[in-house]
Amino acid sequence: MTGDQPGKGRVTLLGGGPGDPDLITVAGLRALRNADVIVYDRLVPLPLLDEARPGAELIEVGKVPRGAFTPQERINQILVEKASEGLDVVRFKGGDPFVFGRGGEEWIACREAGIEVSTIPGISSSIAAAELAGIPVTHRGVATGFTVVSGHVAPDDERNDIDWRGLATAGTTIVILMGVKNLPAITAELIDAGLAPSTPAAVIADAALPTMRTIVGTTAGIAEEAAAAGIEPPAVCVIGAVAGLGLR
Amino acid sequence: MTGDQPGKGRVTLLGGGPGDPDLITVAGLRALRNADVIVYDRLVPLPLLDEARPGAELIEVGKVPRGAFTPQERINQILVEKASEGLDVVRFKGGDPFVFGRGGEEWIACREAGIEVSTIPGISSSIAAAELAGIPVTHRGVATGFTVVSGHVAPDDERNDIDWRGLATAGTTIVILMGVKNLPAITAELIDAGLAPSTPAAVIADAALPTMRTIVGTTAGIAEEAAAAGIEPPAVCVIGAVAGLGLR
Repeated sequence: MTGDQPGKGRVTLLGGGPGDPDLITVAGLRALRNADVIVYDRLVPLPLLDEARPGAELIEVGKVPRGAFTPQERINQILVEKASEGLDVVRFKGGDPFVFGRGGEEWIACREAGIEVSTIPGISSSIAAAELAGIPVTHRGVATGFTVVSGHVAPDDERNDIDWRGLATAGTTIVILMGVKNLPAITAELIDAGLAPSTPAAVIADAALPTMRTIVGTTAGIAEEAAAAGIEPPAVCVIGAVAGLGLR
Repeated sequence: MTGDQPGKGRVTLLGGGPGDPDLITVAGLRALRNADVIVYDRLVPLPLLDEARPGAELIEVGKVPRGAFTPQERINQILVEKASEGLDVVRFKGGDPFVFGRGGEEWIACREAGIEVSTIPGISSSIAAAELAGIPVTHRGVATGFTVVSGHVAPDDERNDIDWRGLATAGTTIVILMGVKNLPAITAELIDAGLAPSTPAAVIADAALPTMRTIVGTTAGIAEEAAAAGIEPPAVCVIGAVAGLGLR
Protein backbone atom coordinates (compact mmCIF):
# COMPACT_ATOMS: atom_id res chain seq x y z
CA MET A 1 0.00 0.00 0.00
CA THR A 2 1.21 3.49 -0.54
CA GLY A 3 1.92 5.43 2.61
CA ASP A 4 -0.05 8.45 3.66
CA GLN A 5 2.63 11.06 4.21
CA PRO A 6 2.12 13.67 1.47
CA GLY A 7 5.30 15.22 0.17
CA LYS A 8 7.47 12.28 1.13
CA GLY A 9 8.93 10.67 -1.96
CA ARG A 10 8.19 7.01 -2.43
CA VAL A 11 7.82 4.33 -5.04
CA THR A 12 4.91 1.92 -5.30
CA LEU A 13 5.36 -1.10 -7.55
CA LEU A 14 1.85 -1.66 -8.86
CA GLY A 15 0.47 -4.68 -10.68
CA GLY A 16 -2.11 -3.75 -13.30
CA GLY A 17 -3.41 -7.26 -13.91
CA PRO A 18 -3.79 -9.18 -17.15
CA GLY A 19 -5.40 -6.55 -19.36
CA ASP A 20 -9.01 -5.80 -18.46
CA PRO A 21 -8.92 -2.42 -16.67
CA ASP A 22 -11.52 -3.71 -14.19
CA LEU A 23 -9.10 -6.40 -13.05
CA ILE A 24 -6.88 -3.93 -11.23
CA THR A 25 -7.32 -3.94 -7.45
CA VAL A 26 -9.18 -1.23 -5.59
CA ALA A 27 -5.90 -0.35 -3.83
CA GLY A 28 -4.15 -0.19 -7.18
CA LEU A 29 -6.71 2.13 -8.71
CA ARG A 30 -6.42 4.44 -5.71
CA ALA A 31 -2.61 4.52 -6.01
CA LEU A 32 -2.86 5.40 -9.70
CA ARG A 33 -5.30 8.21 -8.97
CA ASN A 34 -3.06 9.66 -6.25
CA ALA A 35 0.29 9.37 -8.06
CA ASP A 36 2.42 12.37 -8.96
CA VAL A 37 4.33 10.29 -11.50
CA ILE A 38 3.29 7.07 -13.28
CA VAL A 39 6.12 5.11 -14.89
CA TYR A 40 4.46 2.51 -17.10
CA ASP A 41 5.06 -0.37 -19.47
CA ARG A 42 3.48 -0.99 -22.82
CA LEU A 43 1.61 -4.03 -21.41
CA VAL A 44 -0.38 -2.29 -18.70
CA PRO A 45 -4.12 -1.82 -19.27
CA LEU A 46 -3.64 1.53 -21.01
CA PRO A 47 -7.18 2.90 -20.36
CA LEU A 48 -6.23 3.05 -16.69
CA LEU A 49 -3.84 5.90 -17.47
CA ASP A 50 -6.96 8.04 -17.85
CA GLU A 51 -7.37 7.66 -14.10
CA ALA A 52 -4.24 9.74 -13.45
CA ARG A 53 -4.97 13.03 -11.80
CA PRO A 54 -4.61 16.22 -13.84
CA GLY A 55 -0.97 17.28 -13.83
CA ALA A 56 0.41 13.83 -13.09
CA GLU A 57 3.49 13.03 -15.15
CA LEU A 58 3.18 9.89 -17.29
CA ILE A 59 6.46 8.27 -18.36
CA GLU A 60 6.39 5.33 -20.77
CA VAL A 61 9.40 3.09 -20.34
CA GLY A 62 8.28 0.06 -22.27
CA LYS A 63 9.57 1.28 -25.60
CA VAL A 64 11.57 4.09 -27.08
CA PRO A 65 10.86 5.30 -30.63
CA ARG A 66 13.19 2.93 -32.48
CA GLY A 67 11.63 -0.12 -30.87
CA ALA A 68 14.29 -0.76 -28.26
CA PHE A 69 13.35 -1.15 -24.61
CA THR A 70 14.34 1.34 -21.95
CA PRO A 71 17.21 -0.36 -20.11
CA GLN A 72 16.30 -1.57 -16.63
CA GLU A 73 19.07 0.58 -15.14
CA ARG A 74 17.48 3.67 -16.65
CA ILE A 75 14.06 2.73 -15.28
CA ASN A 76 15.55 2.27 -11.82
CA GLN A 77 17.21 5.67 -12.17
CA ILE A 78 13.93 7.38 -13.12
CA LEU A 79 12.15 5.89 -10.10
CA VAL A 80 14.89 7.02 -7.74
CA GLU A 81 15.19 10.49 -9.25
CA LYS A 82 11.49 11.23 -9.14
CA ALA A 83 11.00 9.88 -5.61
CA SER A 84 14.04 11.85 -4.46
CA GLU A 85 12.19 15.00 -5.54
CA GLY A 86 9.55 14.14 -2.94
CA LEU A 87 7.09 12.76 -5.47
CA ASP A 88 4.69 9.85 -5.12
CA VAL A 89 5.87 7.55 -7.90
CA VAL A 90 3.82 4.60 -9.14
CA ARG A 91 5.71 2.01 -11.18
CA PHE A 92 2.82 0.56 -13.15
CA LYS A 93 3.29 -2.90 -14.66
CA GLY A 94 1.15 -5.49 -16.37
CA GLY A 95 0.31 -8.56 -14.27
CA ASP A 96 2.08 -8.70 -10.93
CA PRO A 97 5.33 -6.83 -10.20
CA PHE A 98 7.02 -9.91 -8.75
CA VAL A 99 6.12 -12.44 -11.47
CA PHE A 100 8.71 -11.94 -14.20
CA GLY A 101 8.19 -8.22 -13.69
CA ARG A 102 11.67 -7.30 -12.48
CA GLY A 103 9.99 -5.72 -9.49
CA GLY A 104 12.64 -7.15 -7.20
CA GLU A 105 15.35 -5.32 -9.12
CA GLU A 106 13.49 -2.03 -8.89
CA TRP A 107 12.85 -2.63 -5.21
CA ILE A 108 16.57 -3.15 -4.59
CA ALA A 109 17.49 -0.03 -6.56
CA CYS A 110 15.07 2.06 -4.50
CA ARG A 111 16.22 0.61 -1.22
CA GLU A 112 19.89 1.18 -2.09
CA ALA A 113 19.01 4.81 -2.75
CA GLY A 114 17.16 5.12 0.56
CA ILE A 115 13.76 5.43 -1.10
CA GLU A 116 10.64 4.01 0.57
CA VAL A 117 9.25 1.28 -1.65
CA SER A 118 6.24 -1.03 -1.44
CA THR A 119 4.15 -3.20 -3.73
CA ILE A 120 0.50 -3.59 -4.56
CA PRO A 121 -0.03 -7.06 -6.04
CA GLY A 122 -1.77 -7.48 -9.37
CA ILE A 123 -3.73 -10.35 -10.90
CA SER A 124 -1.05 -12.45 -12.60
CA SER A 125 -1.81 -13.92 -15.99
CA SER A 126 0.11 -16.97 -14.79
CA ILE A 127 -3.13 -17.93 -13.04
CA ALA A 128 -5.75 -15.70 -14.64
CA ALA A 129 -5.11 -16.37 -18.34
CA ALA A 130 -6.07 -20.01 -17.89
CA GLU A 131 -8.87 -19.07 -15.53
CA LEU A 132 -10.48 -16.67 -17.97
CA ALA A 133 -10.33 -19.47 -20.53
CA GLY A 134 -12.18 -21.72 -18.08
CA ILE A 135 -9.12 -23.72 -17.03
CA PRO A 136 -8.39 -24.07 -13.30
CA VAL A 137 -4.65 -24.43 -12.63
CA THR A 138 -5.57 -26.74 -9.74
CA HIS A 139 -8.50 -29.14 -9.59
CA ARG A 140 -9.16 -31.81 -6.99
CA GLY A 141 -8.12 -35.22 -8.22
CA VAL A 142 -6.54 -33.74 -11.36
CA ALA A 143 -3.78 -31.34 -10.30
CA THR A 144 -2.74 -30.45 -6.76
CA GLY A 145 -0.17 -27.93 -7.84
CA PHE A 146 1.13 -25.79 -10.68
CA THR A 147 4.49 -24.59 -11.89
CA VAL A 148 4.99 -21.25 -13.60
CA VAL A 149 8.07 -20.74 -15.74
CA SER A 150 9.32 -18.34 -18.35
CA GLY A 151 9.65 -19.85 -21.80
CA HIS A 152 11.63 -17.03 -23.33
CA VAL A 153 14.88 -19.00 -23.32
CA ALA A 154 14.86 -22.16 -25.50
CA PRO A 155 15.49 -25.49 -23.74
CA ASP A 156 18.72 -26.05 -25.70
CA ASP A 157 20.03 -22.53 -25.03
CA GLU A 158 22.95 -22.53 -22.61
CA ARG A 159 21.25 -19.72 -20.69
CA ASN A 160 18.27 -21.99 -19.99
CA ASP A 161 18.01 -22.84 -16.32
CA ILE A 162 14.55 -24.42 -16.31
CA ASP A 163 14.44 -28.12 -15.52
CA TRP A 164 12.04 -28.96 -18.37
CA ARG A 165 12.76 -32.67 -17.97
CA GLY A 166 11.88 -32.54 -14.30
CA LEU A 167 8.68 -30.66 -15.10
CA ALA A 168 7.66 -33.42 -17.50
CA THR A 169 7.19 -35.84 -14.63
CA ALA A 170 6.37 -33.51 -11.74
CA GLY A 171 2.61 -33.92 -12.10
CA THR A 172 1.90 -30.22 -11.58
CA THR A 173 0.10 -28.14 -14.17
CA ILE A 174 2.77 -26.38 -16.25
CA VAL A 175 2.16 -22.72 -17.03
CA ILE A 176 4.56 -21.15 -19.50
CA LEU A 177 4.76 -17.37 -19.86
CA MET A 178 6.57 -15.76 -22.76
CA GLY A 179 6.92 -19.13 -24.48
CA VAL A 180 5.11 -18.85 -27.80
CA LYS A 181 8.26 -18.62 -29.92
CA ASN A 182 9.91 -21.57 -28.17
CA LEU A 183 6.78 -23.70 -27.86
CA PRO A 184 7.85 -26.29 -30.49
CA ALA A 185 11.15 -26.87 -28.68
CA ILE A 186 9.60 -26.83 -25.23
CA THR A 187 6.83 -29.32 -26.02
CA ALA A 188 9.31 -31.59 -27.82
CA GLU A 189 11.59 -31.51 -24.77
CA LEU A 190 8.73 -32.32 -22.39
CA ILE A 191 7.56 -35.24 -24.54
CA ASP A 192 11.11 -36.51 -24.95
CA ALA A 193 11.39 -36.51 -21.15
CA GLY A 194 8.32 -38.63 -20.70
CA LEU A 195 5.26 -36.38 -20.78
CA ALA A 196 2.47 -38.14 -22.68
CA PRO A 197 2.07 -36.47 -26.10
CA SER A 198 -1.69 -36.61 -25.59
CA THR A 199 -1.51 -34.48 -22.42
CA PRO A 200 -4.02 -31.66 -22.85
CA ALA A 201 -2.57 -28.23 -23.60
CA ALA A 202 -3.93 -24.77 -24.25
CA VAL A 203 -2.59 -21.46 -25.48
CA ILE A 204 -4.36 -18.29 -24.40
CA ALA A 205 -3.56 -15.05 -26.22
CA ASP A 206 -4.63 -11.56 -25.15
CA ALA A 207 -6.10 -12.87 -21.89
CA ALA A 208 -8.66 -10.51 -20.35
CA LEU A 209 -8.90 -8.41 -23.52
CA PRO A 210 -11.78 -8.36 -26.00
CA THR A 211 -9.37 -9.96 -28.49
CA MET A 212 -8.71 -12.95 -26.21
CA ARG A 213 -8.37 -16.27 -28.02
CA THR A 214 -7.88 -19.80 -26.71
CA ILE A 215 -6.47 -22.76 -28.64
CA VAL A 216 -6.94 -26.16 -27.00
CA GLY A 217 -5.22 -29.34 -28.10
CA THR A 218 -2.56 -31.81 -27.04
CA THR A 219 1.02 -31.20 -26.01
CA ALA A 220 2.15 -32.87 -29.23
CA GLY A 221 0.08 -30.62 -31.45
CA ILE A 222 -0.38 -27.34 -29.60
CA ALA A 223 2.66 -25.50 -30.98
CA GLU A 224 1.61 -26.16 -34.57
CA GLU A 225 -2.03 -25.32 -33.85
CA ALA A 226 -1.10 -22.07 -32.14
CA ALA A 227 1.13 -21.11 -35.07
CA ALA A 228 -1.58 -22.02 -37.57
CA ALA A 229 -4.00 -19.81 -35.65
CA GLY A 230 -1.54 -16.93 -35.84
CA ILE A 231 -1.04 -16.70 -32.07
CA GLU A 232 1.70 -14.21 -31.24
CA PRO A 233 3.27 -13.05 -27.98
CA PRO A 234 2.17 -12.30 -25.36
CA ALA A 235 0.38 -15.56 -24.77
CA VAL A 236 0.22 -18.08 -21.96
CA CYS A 237 0.55 -21.83 -22.46
CA VAL A 238 -0.98 -24.32 -20.02
CA ILE A 239 0.01 -27.98 -20.13
CA GLY A 240 -1.70 -30.62 -18.02
CA ALA A 241 -4.88 -32.54 -17.49
CA VAL A 242 -6.70 -29.41 -16.30
CA ALA A 243 -6.53 -28.06 -19.86
CA GLY A 244 -8.71 -30.99 -20.87
CA LEU A 245 -11.46 -30.49 -18.31
CA GLY A 246 -13.49 -28.71 -20.96
CA LEU A 247 -15.11 -26.30 -18.56
CA ARG A 248 -15.80 -23.75 -21.26
CA MET B 1 -17.36 -10.85 -15.49
CA THR B 2 -20.99 -11.09 -14.57
CA GLY B 3 -23.37 -10.81 -17.47
CA ASP B 4 -25.71 -7.90 -17.97
CA GLN B 5 -29.08 -9.56 -18.36
CA PRO B 6 -31.04 -8.68 -15.22
CA GLY B 7 -33.35 -11.40 -14.00
CA LYS B 8 -31.41 -14.18 -15.65
CA GLY B 9 -29.95 -16.43 -13.01
CA ARG B 10 -26.21 -16.87 -13.04
CA VAL B 11 -23.28 -17.71 -10.82
CA THR B 12 -20.07 -15.70 -10.60
CA LEU B 13 -17.11 -17.35 -8.90
CA LEU B 14 -15.34 -14.40 -7.31
CA GLY B 15 -11.86 -14.25 -5.82
CA GLY B 16 -11.66 -11.93 -2.84
CA GLY B 17 -7.88 -11.82 -2.62
CA PRO B 18 -5.57 -12.52 0.32
CA GLY B 19 -7.33 -10.57 3.06
CA ASP B 20 -7.02 -6.80 2.68
CA PRO B 21 -10.44 -5.62 1.44
CA ASP B 22 -8.69 -3.18 -0.92
CA LEU B 23 -7.02 -6.09 -2.70
CA ILE B 24 -10.24 -7.18 -4.37
CA THR B 25 -10.50 -6.20 -8.04
CA VAL B 26 -12.69 -3.37 -9.26
CA ALA B 27 -14.74 -5.93 -11.21
CA GLY B 28 -15.06 -8.05 -8.09
CA LEU B 29 -16.29 -5.18 -5.95
CA ARG B 30 -18.90 -4.33 -8.57
CA ALA B 31 -20.11 -7.94 -8.68
CA LEU B 32 -20.45 -8.01 -4.90
CA ARG B 33 -22.45 -4.79 -4.93
CA ASN B 34 -24.80 -6.07 -7.63
CA ALA B 35 -25.35 -9.57 -6.27
CA ASP B 36 -28.75 -10.83 -5.17
CA VAL B 37 -27.10 -13.63 -3.21
CA ILE B 38 -23.55 -13.86 -1.82
CA VAL B 39 -22.40 -17.34 -0.84
CA TYR B 40 -19.19 -16.88 1.12
CA ASP B 41 -16.38 -18.64 2.95
CA ARG B 42 -14.94 -17.84 6.33
CA LEU B 43 -11.64 -16.77 4.68
CA VAL B 44 -12.97 -13.95 2.50
CA PRO B 45 -12.20 -10.37 3.56
CA LEU B 46 -15.33 -10.10 5.72
CA PRO B 47 -15.58 -6.27 5.68
CA LEU B 48 -16.43 -6.57 1.97
CA LEU B 49 -19.77 -8.11 2.92
CA ASP B 50 -20.78 -4.59 3.97
CA GLU B 51 -20.71 -3.75 0.25
CA ALA B 52 -23.71 -6.01 -0.40
CA ARG B 53 -26.78 -4.10 -1.48
CA PRO B 54 -29.68 -3.81 0.99
CA GLY B 55 -31.79 -6.93 0.72
CA ALA B 56 -29.05 -9.13 -0.67
CA GLU B 57 -29.03 -12.57 0.88
CA LEU B 58 -25.74 -13.54 2.55
CA ILE B 59 -25.09 -17.26 3.00
CA GLU B 60 -22.05 -18.43 4.93
CA VAL B 61 -20.93 -21.87 3.84
CA GLY B 62 -17.51 -21.99 5.43
CA LYS B 63 -18.72 -23.30 8.76
CA VAL B 64 -21.84 -24.60 10.40
CA PRO B 65 -22.35 -24.12 14.14
CA ARG B 66 -20.67 -27.31 15.34
CA GLY B 67 -17.48 -26.52 13.45
CA ALA B 68 -18.01 -28.83 10.48
CA PHE B 69 -17.68 -27.48 6.96
CA THR B 70 -20.62 -27.27 4.60
CA PRO B 71 -20.11 -30.20 2.24
CA GLN B 72 -19.07 -29.18 -1.26
CA GLU B 73 -22.11 -30.92 -2.71
CA ARG B 74 -24.39 -28.76 -0.59
CA ILE B 75 -22.58 -25.60 -1.69
CA ASN B 76 -22.99 -26.63 -5.32
CA GLN B 77 -26.68 -27.23 -4.66
CA ILE B 78 -27.17 -23.79 -3.10
CA LEU B 79 -25.54 -22.09 -6.09
CA VAL B 80 -27.72 -23.99 -8.55
CA GLU B 81 -30.92 -23.49 -6.57
CA LYS B 82 -30.48 -19.76 -6.16
CA ALA B 83 -29.45 -19.16 -9.77
CA SER B 84 -32.39 -21.28 -10.94
CA GLU B 85 -34.66 -18.78 -9.20
CA GLY B 86 -33.31 -16.14 -11.59
CA LEU B 87 -30.96 -14.61 -9.04
CA ASP B 88 -27.51 -13.13 -9.57
CA VAL B 89 -25.39 -15.34 -7.31
CA VAL B 90 -21.83 -14.47 -6.32
CA ARG B 91 -19.75 -17.32 -4.91
CA PHE B 92 -17.27 -15.31 -2.87
CA LYS B 93 -13.99 -16.99 -1.95
CA GLY B 94 -10.68 -15.98 -0.45
CA GLY B 95 -7.76 -15.78 -2.86
CA ASP B 96 -8.53 -16.98 -6.37
CA PRO B 97 -11.39 -19.39 -7.15
CA PHE B 98 -9.16 -21.67 -9.24
CA VAL B 99 -6.19 -21.97 -6.86
CA PHE B 100 -7.18 -24.68 -4.38
CA GLY B 101 -10.58 -23.03 -4.26
CA ARG B 102 -12.67 -25.87 -5.69
CA GLY B 103 -13.97 -23.36 -8.19
CA GLY B 104 -13.70 -25.94 -10.95
CA GLU B 105 -16.04 -28.25 -9.10
CA GLU B 106 -18.61 -25.49 -8.62
CA TRP B 107 -18.26 -24.51 -12.26
CA ILE B 108 -18.98 -28.08 -13.35
CA ALA B 109 -22.00 -28.34 -11.05
CA CYS B 110 -23.46 -25.13 -12.48
CA ARG B 111 -22.81 -26.16 -16.05
CA GLU B 112 -24.37 -29.56 -15.52
CA ALA B 113 -27.47 -27.79 -14.21
CA GLY B 114 -27.55 -25.46 -17.22
CA ILE B 115 -26.60 -22.39 -15.17
CA GLU B 116 -24.48 -19.61 -16.68
CA VAL B 117 -21.22 -19.44 -14.77
CA SER B 118 -18.12 -17.24 -14.99
CA THR B 119 -15.17 -16.25 -12.84
CA ILE B 120 -13.57 -13.04 -11.67
CA PRO B 121 -9.97 -13.78 -10.69
CA GLY B 122 -8.66 -12.75 -7.30
CA ILE B 123 -5.19 -11.99 -6.01
CA SER B 124 -3.84 -15.37 -4.95
CA SER B 125 -1.84 -15.61 -1.75
CA SER B 126 0.32 -18.13 -3.62
CA ILE B 127 2.04 -15.09 -5.12
CA ALA B 128 0.92 -12.20 -2.91
CA ALA B 129 1.75 -13.56 0.54
CA ALA B 130 5.44 -13.65 -0.34
CA GLU B 131 5.16 -10.36 -2.21
CA LEU B 132 3.65 -8.51 0.74
CA ALA B 133 6.55 -9.86 2.81
CA GLY B 134 8.97 -8.39 0.26
CA ILE B 135 9.80 -11.72 -1.40
CA PRO B 136 9.49 -11.96 -5.20
CA VAL B 137 8.59 -15.50 -6.33
CA THR B 138 10.74 -14.86 -9.41
CA HIS B 139 13.90 -12.78 -9.61
CA ARG B 140 16.34 -12.53 -12.50
CA GLY B 141 19.38 -14.70 -11.90
CA VAL B 142 17.84 -16.23 -8.77
CA ALA B 143 14.59 -17.98 -9.76
CA THR B 144 13.04 -18.16 -13.22
CA GLY B 145 9.96 -20.00 -12.07
CA PHE B 146 7.88 -21.04 -9.09
CA THR B 147 5.83 -24.05 -8.09
CA VAL B 148 2.71 -23.80 -5.97
CA VAL B 149 1.51 -26.89 -4.14
CA SER B 150 -0.86 -27.76 -1.34
CA GLY B 151 0.84 -29.03 1.78
CA HIS B 152 -2.27 -30.31 3.49
CA VAL B 153 -1.41 -33.97 2.83
CA ALA B 154 1.81 -35.19 4.50
CA PRO B 155 4.58 -36.50 2.20
CA ASP B 156 4.31 -40.02 3.68
CA ASP B 157 0.52 -40.14 3.41
CA GLU B 158 -0.66 -42.50 0.71
CA ARG B 159 -3.00 -39.79 -0.58
CA ASN B 160 0.01 -37.52 -1.27
CA ASP B 161 0.49 -36.97 -4.98
CA ILE B 162 3.04 -34.16 -4.84
CA ASP B 163 6.49 -35.02 -6.16
CA TRP B 164 8.34 -33.43 -3.22
CA ARG B 165 11.56 -35.14 -4.25
CA GLY B 166 11.32 -33.70 -7.75
CA LEU B 167 10.64 -30.26 -6.31
CA ALA B 168 13.83 -30.46 -4.25
CA THR B 169 15.95 -30.30 -7.40
CA ALA B 170 13.66 -28.39 -9.80
CA GLY B 171 15.26 -25.02 -9.10
CA THR B 172 11.92 -23.20 -8.96
CA THR B 173 10.79 -21.29 -5.90
CA ILE B 174 8.54 -23.61 -3.89
CA VAL B 175 5.36 -22.08 -2.49
CA ILE B 176 3.39 -24.26 -0.11
CA LEU B 177 -0.18 -23.40 0.79
CA MET B 178 -1.96 -25.08 3.69
CA GLY B 179 1.30 -26.65 4.83
CA VAL B 180 1.97 -25.36 8.34
CA LYS B 181 1.00 -28.59 10.09
CA ASN B 182 3.08 -30.74 7.76
CA LEU B 183 6.04 -28.37 7.48
CA PRO B 184 8.45 -30.52 9.56
CA ALA B 185 7.78 -33.54 7.34
CA ILE B 186 7.84 -31.53 4.10
CA THR B 187 11.13 -29.77 4.81
CA ALA B 188 12.71 -33.04 5.97
CA GLU B 189 11.59 -34.72 2.74
CA LEU B 190 12.98 -31.89 0.60
CA ILE B 191 16.34 -31.96 2.40
CA ASP B 192 16.49 -35.75 2.22
CA ALA B 193 15.99 -35.45 -1.54
CA GLY B 194 18.91 -33.08 -1.96
CA LEU B 195 17.71 -29.56 -1.21
CA ALA B 196 20.45 -27.73 0.70
CA PRO B 197 19.37 -27.37 4.36
CA SER B 198 20.63 -23.79 4.23
CA THR B 199 18.20 -22.88 1.44
CA PRO B 200 16.36 -19.74 2.56
CA ALA B 201 12.75 -20.21 3.63
CA ALA B 202 9.96 -18.02 4.95
CA VAL B 203 6.56 -18.51 6.51
CA ILE B 204 4.00 -15.75 6.13
CA ALA B 205 0.89 -15.84 8.32
CA ASP B 206 -2.19 -13.64 7.92
CA ALA B 207 -0.85 -12.13 4.69
CA ALA B 208 -2.45 -8.79 3.82
CA LEU B 209 -4.02 -8.43 7.25
CA PRO B 210 -2.91 -6.07 10.02
CA THR B 211 -1.87 -9.19 11.96
CA MET B 212 0.50 -10.34 9.19
CA ARG B 213 3.72 -11.92 10.44
CA THR B 214 6.76 -13.21 8.57
CA ILE B 215 9.33 -15.71 9.86
CA VAL B 216 12.51 -15.99 7.77
CA GLY B 217 15.11 -18.71 8.17
CA THR B 218 16.50 -21.78 6.48
CA THR B 219 14.72 -24.84 5.17
CA ALA B 220 16.31 -26.87 7.96
CA GLY B 221 15.05 -24.60 10.70
CA ILE B 222 11.89 -22.93 9.44
CA ALA B 223 9.37 -25.47 10.73
CA GLU B 224 10.70 -25.21 14.26
CA GLU B 225 10.96 -21.42 14.10
CA ALA B 226 7.42 -21.10 12.81
CA ALA B 227 6.15 -23.37 15.57
CA ALA B 228 8.12 -21.43 18.20
CA ALA B 229 6.57 -18.23 16.90
CA GLY B 230 3.11 -19.74 17.26
CA ILE B 231 2.33 -19.58 13.55
CA GLU B 232 -0.98 -21.31 12.79
CA PRO B 233 -2.91 -21.95 9.59
CA PRO B 234 -3.57 -20.31 7.26
CA ALA B 235 0.00 -19.49 6.38
CA VAL B 236 2.12 -19.63 3.24
CA CYS B 237 5.61 -21.12 3.14
CA VAL B 238 8.16 -20.05 0.54
CA ILE B 239 11.33 -22.06 -0.01
CA GLY B 240 14.11 -20.89 -2.31
CA ALA B 241 16.88 -18.36 -2.75
CA VAL B 242 14.33 -15.56 -3.25
CA ALA B 243 13.40 -15.87 0.42
CA GLY B 244 16.97 -14.81 1.22
CA LEU B 245 17.05 -11.67 -0.91
CA GLY B 246 16.26 -9.68 2.20
CA LEU B 247 14.24 -7.05 0.37
CA ARG B 248 12.31 -6.03 3.46
